[in-house]
Amino acid sequence: MPRIRFLFAIIGAVCGGAAGMVASAATAPLTMAEVLAAAKPDDWHALDPENTLILEFARGRVVIELAPAFAPRHVANIKALVREKYFDGLAFLRVQDNYVAQWGDPNADARAGEAAVPRPIRHAARTLKAEFTVPLRADLPFVPLPDRDGYAPQTGFSGDFPAARDPKSRTAWLTHCYGTVGVGRDEDADSGGGTELYAVIGASPRWLDRNITVVGRVVQGMELLSSLPRGNGPLGFYEKAEQRVPIERIRLAADLPPEQRIPLEVLRTDSAAFAALIEARRNRREAWYKVPAGYIDVCSVPIPVRPVATGK
Amino acid sequence: MPRIRFLFAIIGAVCGGAAGMVASAATAPLTMAEVLAAAKPDDWHALDPENTLILEFARGRVVIELAPAFAPRHVANIKALVREKYFDGLAFLRVQDNYVAQWGDPNADARAGEAAVPRPIRHAARTLKAEFTVPLRADLPFVPLPDRDGYAPQTGFSGDFPAARDPKSRTAWLTHCYGTVGVGRDEDADSGGGTELYAVIGASPRWLDRNITVVGRVVQGMELLSSLPRGNGPLGFYEKAEQRVPIERIRLAADLPPEQRIPLEVLRTDSAAFAALIEARRNRREAWYKVPAGYIDVCSVPIPVRPVATGK
Repeated sequence: MPRIRFLFAIIGAVCGGAAGMVASAATAPLTMAEVLAAAKPDDWHALDPENTLILEFARGRVVIELAPAFAPRHVANIKALVREKYFDGLAFLRVQDNYVAQWGDPNADARAGEAAVPRPIRHAARTLKAEFTVPLRADLPFVPLPDRDGYAPQTGFSGDFPAARDPKSRTAWLTHCYGTVGVGRDEDADSGGGTELYAVIGASPRWLDRNITVVGRVVQGMELLSSLPRGNGPLGFYEKAEQRVPIERIRLAADLPPEQRIPLEVLRTDSAAFAALIEARRNRREAWYKVPAGYIDVCSVPIPVRPVATGK
Repeated sequence: MPRIRFLFAIIGAVCGGAAGMVASAATAPLTMAEVLAAAKPDDWHALDPENTLILEFARGRVVIELAPAFAPRHVANIKALVREKYFDGLAFLRVQDNYVAQWGDPNADARAGEAAVPRPIRHAARTLKAEFTVPLRADLPFVPLPDRDGYAPQTGFSGDFPAARDPKSRTAWLTHCYGTVGVGRDEDADSGGGTELYAVIGASPRWLDRNITVVGRVVQGMELLSSLPRGNGPLGFYEKAEQRVPIERIRLAADLPPEQRIPLEVLRTDSAAFAALIEARRNRREAWYKVPAGYIDVCSVPIPVRPVATGK
């Protein structure tokens, strides 16, 4: 918690721009700023526009990277919903403090004879068989985190996502961290389908792991969701219709003209730079820190995202 | 992530009011709602007004419980600052997404000759020797959490706070969880004193443990801090003066007339009810959950707070 006076001394370090902080061949990068400054262009990869959602609302734009490897049916269905403009004009319905921001159809539960009617679905499915875990497969990347985790036998990173796996049951799943996006459901495991989605806005609710289908994570714009007014109703649902926060539209980046896409790239989690970043976060070497933690949990490792450099 | 339709089926459980959910002598409480419904009046204790801060600003009131057992010098100094009205008219200066909301004097770093001057301090100290840990003492309560933690040899609860300890170094400290309140400092460990404070508004930043003096936790009004607009400057500082969020005043509850206090009580962490609550969170038994986690981390155990019943 640097105070203001101290802030200016460390802006250089945070921006990776102070001459003394740039890693040279002779000095291994020790801080996250140094790691990122030393990363090569190939350590980054561009987001796939076919698996990138852009949510637009009055507060700005939120970018979500989808995870088809972990929820193939749900991701395909969400893309189908997006392509038939299902979400356009729907709203954030629930913002529960230290938990989730959830969006969908305010009239989803309207019954026959009521004035309001649920948003119709033309081609997509309303519900799907759950995808809480996937079978361990050779083609599923996994960069293990050596640090022991309480909630799972193994944690690590699969592609651009924090993940876990259980060698005994031979299953893998995405972990619930800040920014994780999942599929709302009722009590029945197979009652979700992607018409109602949530993003985690608080401390990692790892107890949701393997209980709900995770479809991706927010890679830009989290602060627009995390600062939404909290709902006063039970579970953080907005009690009055006028409190709901309208969604203008959700589009697949691939369906937008190039100038409307938000080109981002992610640090490869199988790169040496990312391994160095994990160590930089496990043992913070910035002068401010007096006691390095000697440990890092899977949700506390940032998976860096940055705009693609112009002209790339 | 219950959907709306499902919500109404579980409101009863959340409120602890559905007849079938109230624990009887014959059925051990299994969910948090059941545990709280079954807790006896003596399982709760009232907050000490001498160690309760009330922060008032345009958004409402935030209640902070101080932890004199873990930071005696800093808590005494913060109370001295509050009593000389140091914080009145100061502001939230920094809101960094998934990290902290920090408040203090916008002019703290003004230099001689500048129009703005730092807020003067009359009786309290500006800086103090750090209190990152305290020696293990027989009179320091500690209810251990059996679940293994990565960041500390032991975690658990000390009084109303999540805590950790290291039998080897014979030290104890409060852990950084959602709502934890600490003392901003510069690079020098002893450069803080309580004039600039922060509350954690994101995923538990446990790597701050033992690196900063923790003085308490927010027990009411977290949603007013966590939904503050994020700062656009480095480290989430507001870049423009007009973005800062003014603080009307901070008072010690003991110094307010009784009708202006906010009487709250906390579930005793050394009670059987709290032990049952831990198990209810370690293995969620609500019908919505399909796979109990079998684990809980110290920051994911809620320490329940409720208004003192009228007439009590």
